[in-house]
Amino acid sequence: MSKAGGDGGEGAGGSSSEKAQPPEDKAPERKAQGKAGATTIGPGWTKVSCPCCMSEQIEPLVVVKLGQKVRPETKRWLIRLIGAPQKDGGAALLAHPGEDATGDIIVVAAPCCALLRATEELGLCKPYHNGDIAAFSYNDRDNFKNSDNMEMFLTLAERQYIVKYELDALRAQRDQRIPGLPDSYLLKSRDSIWQKLGSFGVIVDTFPLHNPSKLKSLCKAWYSGNQLSQPLDSVNEYFGTSVGFYFSFLDFYTWSLLPPAILGLSLMFYSGEAQKEMESVSGSQATTVDDESQSMFSGHMVQAVFSMIWSTVFMELWKRRSSTLSCRWGTLNLTERFSEPRPGFHGELGVNPVTGRMEPLFPGWQRDLRMALVSVPLVGLFHGLVVLGMVCFYWGETQVKQIHKEWNSLVSQPLLYLPSMIHIVYTNMLATVYRTVAQSLTEYENHREESAFENHLTAKVLVFTFFNNFAVLFHIAFFKQDVPLLRKRLASLLIVSQLVNQLTEVVVPYLVDRFLSAPLRAETEDDPQEDKFRNQGSLPAFPGLFAEYIELLVQFGYLSLFSCVYPLTAVLLLINNITEIRTDAYKICNLFRKPFCPPVANMGVWQLAFEVLSFVSVVSNCWLLLLSPQLQEVYQESKMSSVNILVLAVLVEHVLIVVKVILAFLIPDEPDWVRIKRERIEYTSMQALKHQILRFHS
Amino acid sequence: MSKAGGDGGEGAGGSSSEKAQPPEDKAPERKAQGKAGATTIGPGWTKVSCPCCMSEQIEPLVVVKLGQKVRPETKRWLIRLIGAPQKDGGAALLAHPGEDATGDIIVVAAPCCALLRATEELGLCKPYHNGDIAAFSYNDRDNFKNSDNMEMFLTLAERQYIVKYELDALRAQRDQRIPGLPDSYLLKSRDSIWQKLGSFGVIVDTFPLHNPSKLKSLCKAWYSGNQLSQPLDSVNEYFGTSVGFYFSFLDFYTWSLLPPAILGLSLMFYSGEAQKEMESVSGSQATTVDDESQSMFSGHMVQAVFSMIWSTVFMELWKRRSSTLSCRWGTLNLTERFSEPRPGFHGELGVNPVTGRMEPLFPGWQRDLRMALVSVPLVGLFHGLVVLGMVCFYWGETQVKQIHKEWNSLVSQPLLYLPSMIHIVYTNMLATVYRTVAQSLTEYENHREESAFENHLTAKVLVFTFFNNFAVLFHIAFFKQDVPLLRKRLASLLIVSQLVNQLTEVVVPYLVDRFLSAPLRAETEDDPQEDKFRNQGSLPAFPGLFAEYIELLVQFGYLSLFSCVYPLTAVLLLINNITEIRTDAYKICNLFRKPFCPPVANMGVWQLAFEVLSFVSVVSNCWLLLLSPQLQEVYQESKMSSVNILVLAVLVEHVLIVVKVILAFLIPDEPDWVRIKRERIEYTSMQALKHQILRFHS
Repeated sequence: MSKAGGDGGEGAGGSSSEKAQPPEDKAPERKAQGKAGATTIGPGWTKVSCPCCMSEQIEPLVVVKLGQKVRPETKRWLIRLIGAPQKDGGAALLAHPGEDATGDIIVVAAPCCALLRATEELGLCKPYHNGDIAAFSYNDRDNFKNSDNMEMFLTLAERQYIVKYELDALRAQRDQRIPGLPDSYLLKSRDSIWQKLGSFGVIVDTFPLHNPSKLKSLCKAWYSGNQLSQPLDSVNEYFGTSVGFYFSFLDFYTWSLLPPAILGLSLMFYSGEAQKEMESVSGSQATTVDDESQSMFSGHMVQAVFSMIWSTVFMELWKRRSSTLSCRWGTLNLTERFSEPRPGFHGELGVNPVTGRMEPLFPGWQRDLRMALVSVPLVGLFHGLVVLGMVCFYWGETQVKQIHKEWNSLVSQPLLYLPSMIHIVYTNMLATVYRTVAQSLTEYENHREESAFENHLTAKVLVFTFFNNFAVLFHIAFFKQDVPLLRKRLASLLIVSQLVNQLTEVVVPYLVDRFLSAPLRAETEDDPQEDKFRNQGSLPAFPGLFAEYIELLVQFGYLSLFSCVYPLTAVLLLINNITEIRTDAYKICNLFRKPFCPPVANMGVWQLAFEVLSFVSVVSNCWLLLLSPQLQEVYQESKMSSVNILVLAVLVEHVLIVVKVILAFLIPDEPDWVRIKRERIEYTSMQALKHQILRFHS
Repeated sequence: MSKAGGDGGEGAGGSSSEKAQPPEDKAPERKAQGKAGATTIGPGWTKVSCPCCMSEQIEPLVVVKLGQKVRPETKRWLIRLIGAPQKDGGAALLAHPGEDATGDIIVVAAPCCALLRATEELGLCKPYHNGDIAAFSYNDRDNFKNSDNMEMFLTLAERQYIVKYELDALRAQRDQRIPGLPDSYLLKSRDSIWQKLGSFGVIVDTFPLHNPSKLKSLCKAWYSGNQLSQPLDSVNEYFGTSVGFYFSFLDFYTWSLLPPAILGLSLMFYSGEAQKEMESVSGSQATTVDDESQSMFSGHMVQAVFSMIWSTVFMELWKRRSSTLSCRWGTLNLTERFSEPRPGFHGELGVNPVTGRMEPLFPGWQRDLRMALVSVPLVGLFHGLVVLGMVCFYWGETQVKQIHKEWNSLVSQPLLYLPSMIHIVYTNMLATVYRTVAQSLTEYENHREESAFENHLTAKVLVFTFFNNFAVLFHIAFFKQDVPLLRKRLASLLIVSQLVNQLTEVVVPYLVDRFLSAPLRAETEDDPQEDKFRNQGSLPAFPGLFAEYIELLVQFGYLSLFSCVYPLTAVLLLINNITEIRTDAYKICNLFRKPFCPPVANMGVWQLAFEVLSFVSVVSNCWLLLLSPQLQEVYQESKMSSVNILVLAVLVEHVLIVVKVILAFLIPDEPDWVRIKRERIEYTSMQALKHQILRFHS
């Protein structure tokens, strides 16, 4: 993937006899080669079971943090379990006890074989020796490029995810007790060991390790200079595909903002709207001259129609880009639905009808029933509460204004702010409660695949957050039908929310980094590896990409839903996003523990959300155009009856929606060359089926 | 599939020495077994190349009719070619010269091996020995049920299609001349031999043979009794999946008409609308009493909303049914895109990037360009011509009326009919010309797969025919906004078009059958086989299912687009369809040559057409409701402003569309068990890939 994958120089050789002491004598040597990586750890690893994986250098990938009261025999048992071959119920990985058997960390690495087998199991595609890309097959490993060098073959993120995947897949083979724990802590047969140990308090945390040298070069290429493009392949290499997809989308979205931004600016200058816009933002009604209102009218029109078509073209082109990336990053052919269910999945043990493996089964209709009867009503209830809050807020505001009018005293002055304050507190509380509810609802729905779980959870929170953000704007646009107020509100939202975001995203992290993450900064070359690992554990966990995505979605909502009201939206967003790229990059590199990222083939439910928004935008834009005072005037002049105008607007709306549907249909979702690669992978496996006699489902 | 597949008793043994004489002595024997089949033909078959296919009984599947001037050496060459193994450029089939080398037919049959290999190549799924369904693999043939008995393993339609498939796949291996033809008739390397021979006039026709005994039992089970359900599996077995899908859809559609029919009837009786409907149909304006108009209003509303939701539920359930059928008929996993391109496809010779085979290639962008720059404008032009015709018609009508008013004489009376007559002639001519143009446009677009070709051609003709049918109705509904006229027109269209259809579909075929297809009826048991084959050839070719499908689509259009205007639509259609099933069945069984039907997985572009219509129906129904005079009155009473009513209507329309989209999204397109089978097929081929080392794309 990237040259950064080439430095396989981590891990000390088995030559030195010191235990858990970094072999300092080798450090300069490595540094001189410019490959570095301070992640050296001494011998003391569990033994590998297969001869092909005997290697001089072992790369520590993941740290398991144990509870403080965990006794050495439990730790020893756990290390043995991690190192045991899979047929004995182990994870077939490599474990290292850190300083000694009493320390509270276990360092885990993966032998070659385990990585390759998991690569096949996950359905990752890798470059074949002839330059083609093909679904990796363990039996055919010799024909894949670099399959003898794990650091070249798999990305760091993939290696680390595989370790987590194997640990999560650990299942108790029979009812058993855990050494060093009271008898009440019992593992039942087929329990997910990792989950149980977590709930027993044995395992506090499992996190992947940063690779300082790689991180440094990544940071340099990513955000420290004035570069325009992001090193997306390296980001994917280091952080994994889901992070890669987020930053690719951010990148693509930012560049796509250029056309509407340019159009907005030029319309602004061309029709001399700049000051008028300002006036109407500042509340004074513009005194429109007939001719100017005409040109403004057409400007509004052009802006609205352009943004509606633009949003569809943008999403379609992103789909192509996304499939290109998924092809390049080898996630074209993931096989999550054929692998083991996610650890939290429960159900009656049975034979999976597709794979023929024993695993818990949960009927789909039961899940649907739960969604229809529990999730949907509860989600609806929360949305009702948001509306209720808004109604109360408006009611309270009028009440308070009346009181203030009657009393008109200093006492009643602060009362004016009371409704908004109560509303803000209420909304925030609701959002917090909702998040917990959404989490447990999605747990309750019991999805088999991790991605399905993530998508359902995201969808729930997303709809709520979006509703929360836009309820007021929709209320102004559709009930109050007050375009100047909408414009004012939108402008202040855009400016304020961006300022707040930039502040929290740049300044706060910087302060945190400077003053709070002292232990990391105080690190020296000579510190023992274990301390460095432990320091990484002291960072806060990565909160996930939800907040980042929702920010983009809300932005996109402002832009597409209300763009015709405030034409400078795209310009503001463009400026915002250019800094956003850098702050997000800085955040993920420096302020959090490294996250595990499962390989994914696309943005999941976010793509759908953007698409839905792009269609809703047609309705909202047509409505706003109809409302805009300038247009109203034009109509009055042309003496069209209001019914005719409405019919015209509806007609335009329908035509635009049809055009968007046709556009979305006409632009293929993947470039030809990706389609060919995908079909070739399909064809190969079909051919394979034809040429073998042994069948697996008999 | 069906028991009918069991009678493998066709074809005489090699024992008798008469050439091309049915062995009469065996006939009673076969009859006694009830298996019969008059398709016996003597020895004289070309030799099979592989020992496993040596069989005592050979079933004649396809007849190739040669031109009258074809010389015996050409016929001999062709027979040799059909019989030659594939590595020598032959079709590896079995050929029989009919009576002798000078006759103008060649009878073709298929050996076991050829059938099995083609089954694999087409990607057909067949039952595995453990009861599962699996993609057929030649190497694994022994594990498939009945794979030693072709009559049980493949349906008759599949066997015959495979023969055609192999004949179409014949390609010249080098430049060569054809024996018995002048030197100017030359085959170039990689020419499709079958196509070339057709254009040289050597081959006049290629058609599959009827199996009289099977046909008889099929007819009995299908339409001769009062049975409610159709023997769909036997239809699929005998005629092939595309015919099977048509009749399944017709069946499903007819039953789905029950709810709207019942609703329509009950609304009619409940609100005593019957006579009022009559009145308004006969043109007199109904004198509405307030209360009744109210109930009628709600009746209209209920009808409209119901029909809008119904159409989506109907389509979604049909998709499930369709995937069930495709699973049952083994077309779940067709591999058309991996097989050879269709014979008419041309392009520069190159290596297919997916399969790695040498074949003509044609870049997709060039096809897109041709569609965008040639097809779309031309299709648009024809639609323009339809509109132009309509405009001229209306203009002419007013002119003629004026003239008649001025002259008011007997001379001007017939003039009144002139515009309609000219318009009808014009429309029909246009339709005929358009069909030819559509055909050549689709040829010009140069689609690689037969199904893509069919879909594009169908789409072109479909849009035009539909537009032709509905232009007048849309004009009345949206421009004239004259609901009573629309109702009158719709009622007369429904009644007249059904009467005409029933007439042409029942009476004409009956007459044709009775008086014209005499040679077939005069057939006796003692006639030589060859004459019987030739008699089948004298029947007209099956015109395809386009006319049948478009009839259903137009019906569905009447029902869904304008149902709220004339509530009895569903009842009339239900009655029509119940007879339609029988007449269509009668037609295809008796009046035409048996058609070749490629295996297909669904209805193709027709499904899309029905879905699009179901969405357009929301717009049209909401509009019509808005226009309906009863509603107008109600509005006036409730003193809503017309703008508010319009806004309300638009709101209702949007909500209904959203509900339909959500419904379509929520109802899964295939039942769980089909999904499991499909995933299992995928999983198996994935597993196969993992377990083999040999790769095919290196």
